[in-house]
Amino acid sequence: MISGGGPTLAVVGATGAVGAVLRGLLSERQDVWGEIRLIGSPRSAGRKLSVRGEEVEVLPLGEEALAGADVVLLLVPDEVAAQWAPVAVGQGAVVVDGSAAFRMDPDVPLVVPEINAHAARVRPRGIIANPDCTTLAMIVAVGALHSEWGLDELIVSSYQAVSGSGREGVATLREQLALVAGTELGTKPGDVRRALGDTVPYPAPIALNVVPFAGTLAQDGWTSEELKVRDETRKVLSLPDLRVSATCVRVPVITGHSLSVHARFEREVSVSGAHEILANAPGVVLCDDPAEGEFPTPADVVGTDPTWVGRVRRSLDDPRVLELFVCGDNLRKGAALNAVQIAEAVASGH
Amino acid sequence: MISGGGPTLAVVGATGAVGAVLRGLLSERQDVWGEIRLIGSPRSAGRKLSVRGEEVEVLPLGEEALAGADVVLLLVPDEVAAQWAPVAVGQGAVVVDGSAAFRMDPDVPLVVPEINAHAARVRPRGIIANPDCTTLAMIVAVGALHSEWGLDELIVSSYQAVSGSGREGVATLREQLALVAGTELGTKPGDVRRALGDTVPYPAPIALNVVPFAGTLAQDGWTSEELKVRDETRKVLSLPDLRVSATCVRVPVITGHSLSVHARFEREVSVSGAHEILANAPGVVLCDDPAEGEFPTPADVVGTDPTWVGRVRRSLDDPRVLELFVCGDNLRKGAALNAVQIAEAVASGH
Ligand SMILES: NC(=O)c1ccc[n+]([C@@H]2O[C@H](COP(=O)([O-])OP(=O)(O)OC[C@H]3O[C@@H](n4cnc5c(N)ncnc54)[C@H](OP(=O)(O)O)[C@@H]3O)[C@@H](O)[C@H]2O)c1
Ligand SMILES: NC(=O)c1ccc[n+]([C@@H]2O[C@H](COP(=O)([O-])OP(=O)(O)OC[C@H]3O[C@@H](n4cnc5c(N)ncnc54)[C@H](OP(=O)(O)O)[C@@H]3O)[C@@H](O)[C@H]2O)c1
Repeated sequence: MISGGGPTLAVVGATGAVGAVLRGLLSERQDVWGEIRLIGSPRSAGRKLSVRGEEVEVLPLGEEALAGADVVLLLVPDEVAAQWAPVAVGQGAVVVDGSAAFRMDPDVPLVVPEINAHAARVRPRGIIANPDCTTLAMIVAVGALHSEWGLDELIVSSYQAVSGSGREGVATLREQLALVAGTELGTKPGDVRRALGDTVPYPAPIALNVVPFAGTLAQDGWTSEELKVRDETRKVLSLPDLRVSATCVRVPVITGHSLSVHARFEREVSVSGAHEILANAPGVVLCDDPAEGEFPTPADVVGTDPTWVGRVRRSLDDPRVLELFVCGDNLRKGAALNAVQIAEAVASGH
Repeated sequence: MISGGGPTLAVVGATGAVGAVLRGLLSERQDVWGEIRLIGSPRSAGRKLSVRGEEVEVLPLGEEALAGADVVLLLVPDEVAAQWAPVAVGQGAVVVDGSAAFRMDPDVPLVVPEINAHAARVRPRGIIANPDCTTLAMIVAVGALHSEWGLDELIVSSYQAVSGSGREGVATLREQLALVAGTELGTKPGDVRRALGDTVPYPAPIALNVVPFAGTLAQDGWTSEELKVRDETRKVLSLPDLRVSATCVRVPVITGHSLSVHARFEREVSVSGAHEILANAPGVVLCDDPAEGEFPTPADVVGTDPTWVGRVRRSLDDPRVLELFVCGDNLRKGAALNAVQIAEAVASGH
């Protein structure tokens, strides 16, 4: 085990979809850590997983595994995070939580380093929260435009990949694709559903289909996922009254969330101005020359760190409105990368 | 050949994706026609295709094939329709054109029978145009809500099936799916693109991907498909100044276009009011009980005639805004069904 003088990092959920990407990022990035501990459920205890080029044994989540950690990254379901974050804080760690458990807690900052890094320094509960992958898919680009023009309203429709539902989502799409490939399915009412049988974790088939329902039913017909986009965007941008409407739709893509964004600003916008802002925004890549086939797609940007932005258009009817198509890797900037950026800032005392 | 006393119908493009569905509809619907002629390119001449339970020989498009037809349905590319519509009219037929060739001609009505059937009666050029499949995916539902509340602005993002690009689109997705099924593709930048090679007719892979570009590049970054939604919605609803923003995205679905619709009205709206309007609107099926897993998806509604509407929500920030998710079969109501409805109305003298 490499164990320099750096702080100790505990990764809880190291065996999951986000955890796997996080281990890759820790191996690629400049190494600021002393010990790195990998933690999973008792089911995974004893497995060996690689990080920083070494095989490390997975510890079962518990007080012992967390003891002495300086920073604890939680990449586990909400209820597991809700239970264990206070325990880790009680043992002296700063917690960076990738789940939704604490995001809307007024005493927990919700941080996207490119936008509100400073917020991570005020953490009354010792917990810093990471936004949802759908919010993260667009917030860096939208935040950059907001700094210049002042955001007034946001209307988004998502095209969300199955790895947003973790390992189970990926396994389900792979299985369903194997069943529909080489068939004539997709041309008669319900033929795909009948051929597939079970569609868990989705409420409808995801191969040869799109599913306009992600998360759980929340309020007045809105889903939890749609309200997260609204609430988290407001919190990250410090715009508590921002008008936000989101429609969250799952699509048969492995990794890479996309959003169609309709953003109204306080001031008049221009495409050339937007290009300049986006080209200079940290964490953003402008990819917008459709005449040359340049626009982002999830299959092209998966595995990359930035938020990719293309199809930039000004509304033909409203000079304050921009349309964008935005893609990002939901496991990287949408989860592991944003979390590790926060953890590194904590480790370096920023 | 069945040849009663009814008018003669010529179907040009009978061999295409829309043509195949049209032949099915002619076989299912109440039969108002005398002779039905099936016409294709010279490539298809002599093929036998079935309609109304009979095998009919395909004629090559030409003056001879059109002679004596009372109604000519054009289900062919724009340039073929542009050339042959005036010829058919010159030979005494009424033309119902499924292409985009004449849709924005002020002397050609653009007709959706549930909304503006009356417009089909004034046709100075002898031509009636059928809207684009993306406009048709939502216009019947939006039109019904407009009648009650007055539409003020429309912001839509599409999830468009590959059969919207005809036979070639379907063949391409089927081929690509066969290549990606059973692989681990979709997790590294560009891995899907490299594995597939050619992606024609799309500018990027369509399997395990979404492609935010449909049609051709038109004006100021907007695509032809996005401007069609704007121009055609304005024309069908007789709202020449309606604010419309569309983002058109192709998804790996065989048949069934979906749209996420954000519609602002002149008056305050309610979900219960919208449910009542939609449940009573001709050509619309309300499918909106997400707690019971009820929302429309393309795989569930393919092969059916109506426009399916679900996920009805009122904006949390604006009491005049409704959100809807709408699905319809792009080959049926999106093309062949709307065209045959118009043709039947012409045949019966309405
Ligand atoms: N996937 C995304 O795009 C994404 C994006 C943003 C945020 N998130 C959030 O990140 C978290 C992890 O998501 P994921 O997609 O990686 O899920 P996942 O693939 O299902 O992995 C879940 C992880 O949680 C661990 N875990 C589950 N129950 C546990 C328990 N009782 N004690 C200890 N560990 C337990 C699992 O360990 P075992 O292997 O031992 O079961 C596994 O490491 C979730 O809160 C999710 O909402 C995900
Ligand atoms: N697909 C949709 O969802 C949809 C929806 C709304 C509108 N439309 C429009 O409907 C039209 C047909 O679309 P599609 O999807 O059915 O296309 P498709 O599958 O590619 O079929 C094209 C049809 O046009 C015929 N054709 C092509 N060139 C011809 C020529 N020079 N002379 C005579 N016939 C010719 C073809 O005949 P051969 O077989 O002999 O080549 C075939 O029957 C297009 O204008 C399209 O934009 C399509």
